[in-house]
Amino acid sequence: MLTQSTYSTQITNAIEQAQFPTDPPKLYDPIRYILGLSGKRIRPLLVMLGADLFAFDDMESTIPAALAVEYFHNFSLIHDDIMDEAPLRRGAQTVHKKWSENVAILSGDALLVKAYEEIARCAPAKIPALLKVFNRMALEVCEGQQKDMDFETEDSVAEADYISMIRAKTSVLLGGALQMGAILANANEQEQDLLFQFGVNLGIAFQLQDDILDVYGNPENFGKQVGGDILCDKKTILRIHLQQLVDVQDAAVLDNLVNELDAETKIETTKKLYAKYGVRSIAEQLKDHYAELAYNALETIPVGDQQKMALRDLAQNLMVRTY
Amino acid sequence: MLTQSTYSTQITNAIEQAQFPTDPPKLYDPIRYILGLSGKRIRPLLVMLGADLFAFDDMESTIPAALAVEYFHNFSLIHDDIMDEAPLRRGAQTVHKKWSENVAILSGDALLVKAYEEIARCAPAKIPALLKVFNRMALEVCEGQQKDMDFETEDSVAEADYISMIRAKTSVLLGGALQMGAILANANEQEQDLLFQFGVNLGIAFQLQDDILDVYGNPENFGKQVGGDILCDKKTILRIHLQQLVDVQDAAVLDNLVNELDAETKIETTKKLYAKYGVRSIAEQLKDHYAELAYNALETIPVGDQQKMALRDLAQNLMVRTY
Repeated sequence: MLTQSTYSTQITNAIEQAQFPTDPPKLYDPIRYILGLSGKRIRPLLVMLGADLFAFDDMESTIPAALAVEYFHNFSLIHDDIMDEAPLRRGAQTVHKKWSENVAILSGDALLVKAYEEIARCAPAKIPALLKVFNRMALEVCEGQQKDMDFETEDSVAEADYISMIRAKTSVLLGGALQMGAILANANEQEQDLLFQFGVNLGIAFQLQDDILDVYGNPENFGKQVGGDILCDKKTILRIHLQQLVDVQDAAVLDNLVNELDAETKIETTKKLYAKYGVRSIAEQLKDHYAELAYNALETIPVGDQQKMALRDLAQNLMVRTY
Repeated sequence: MLTQSTYSTQITNAIEQAQFPTDPPKLYDPIRYILGLSGKRIRPLLVMLGADLFAFDDMESTIPAALAVEYFHNFSLIHDDIMDEAPLRRGAQTVHKKWSENVAILSGDALLVKAYEEIARCAPAKIPALLKVFNRMALEVCEGQQKDMDFETEDSVAEADYISMIRAKTSVLLGGALQMGAILANANEQEQDLLFQFGVNLGIAFQLQDDILDVYGNPENFGKQVGGDILCDKKTILRIHLQQLVDVQDAAVLDNLVNELDAETKIETTKKLYAKYGVRSIAEQLKDHYAELAYNALETIPVGDQQKMALRDLAQNLMVRTY
């Protein structure tokens, strides 16, 4: 087993060495641009760690599948940013702002096809199984994004629907990336499934933690504006539970907050309601529940304890973020 | 060999029987909607005829690949219609008009993934080759659409660039559909390539004929408004050649026509210039050239003459449209 940072370096090199045509520029420049913004690239790493877990001896051959997952993720960012009218991504202009919506639609489409080109570069015998997992994952990400947009206009959202949404929108991609690595390393279906469950549940726990950190995180560690979700009335796990618990009087206070223009007042009032109804601890418990499901799935996979170190470390790094 | 109409019926049945989830409705209703608008469905037919050419004995197994091509085509229509701001498609509201741009972006994405799901349903041994052809085709369609949009803002376009654009935007899909059928029927690479060339060149000839028919077609047979391309200043093969041939005086007349508001004057003045510079016959010759390339490729394929009847008929039906 190589170290995690070796894999990360291999991924970075592969992305930098990827050749995209120069013509037509409006199709391929945005692809080079977004891939160059270099996020954490955790998804392609998961493909490699999924193979590494089974002591796969041809790690170099996992690179195309890793790139496929990273390309898919960036395709979804380009299109989601149009839909969400987001001006910034990773601190830089989004593709539709820097070019145009049409350019963002079409270059996103091309990047999705490029992801499938990477699938086609994998070992031929593995392609049918990889394609199946990749398609299911891709479709669930689309479903999750649609549900997320639907929630914006709904009065109340149930916890189960929220979990179902974040599962589809962000977590199946983590599970699917790991499963693709397992497929490449010849893991059997039960092993693949456990690894998928590990990724999905870890993803849900991470997303719930993100909701909590938005309110209670240390600004220095969190890297985003604290209270951002509150200011844009986002239906987070905290907000969803608050809405179910508030009495009539506090419900009216909450409703009026939509029109509150003073940021500090809006954040502080909301936080007081969160404290009054104990929603932080409900959210923490839910997060712990999914993190535990994830760890249990990982522990159940029948490979040596030593092999699990990298994924265990990664999970702990993702979950233990200073509050 | 079954008749062409039997294959068309099988395709229609397969599309009608295709199961899409109901939830989320905004993701899957638009997919059901556009597939239900039922165009000519010539592309999936080409997959089946491509297999039939080689006397394939398991035609039922070509249906998923045929659906993949039809889904891809409809995905590209949904996204192109957003970019072109088109209000109507097949006489009905476009997806982005009936729902919204966001719905059209995301349901288009999902339909593209559904196309790949159909590829994944093909015979596993054939999937790597099918995927490769499908990806190349899909990427070229994106390139063609971008070039087409780029042309709109360019002063002049060279004939070779125009041919290259229509080749990518519309013709490789026809060639690729046929090639996928050939792959399923175990044709060798040379046979696949000839069939691909047949489809691509036929597609180019058909598109050039479409440019000619827009101006010289019999309205009763053509089914579109005659002169529509002239009215929206579209860079057709006629217009491209005219711009290269006009003298300074006529160039000024042509330039001023952009601002001509009377439709009949605009059409008649343009047609007079077309006649003066003989661009119709240049376009006809070019069309005939590509049609001949197509027929030659078909004739060169080493299968019995009887096997070629269906594709020859199809080509002749596409090319001989009453003027």
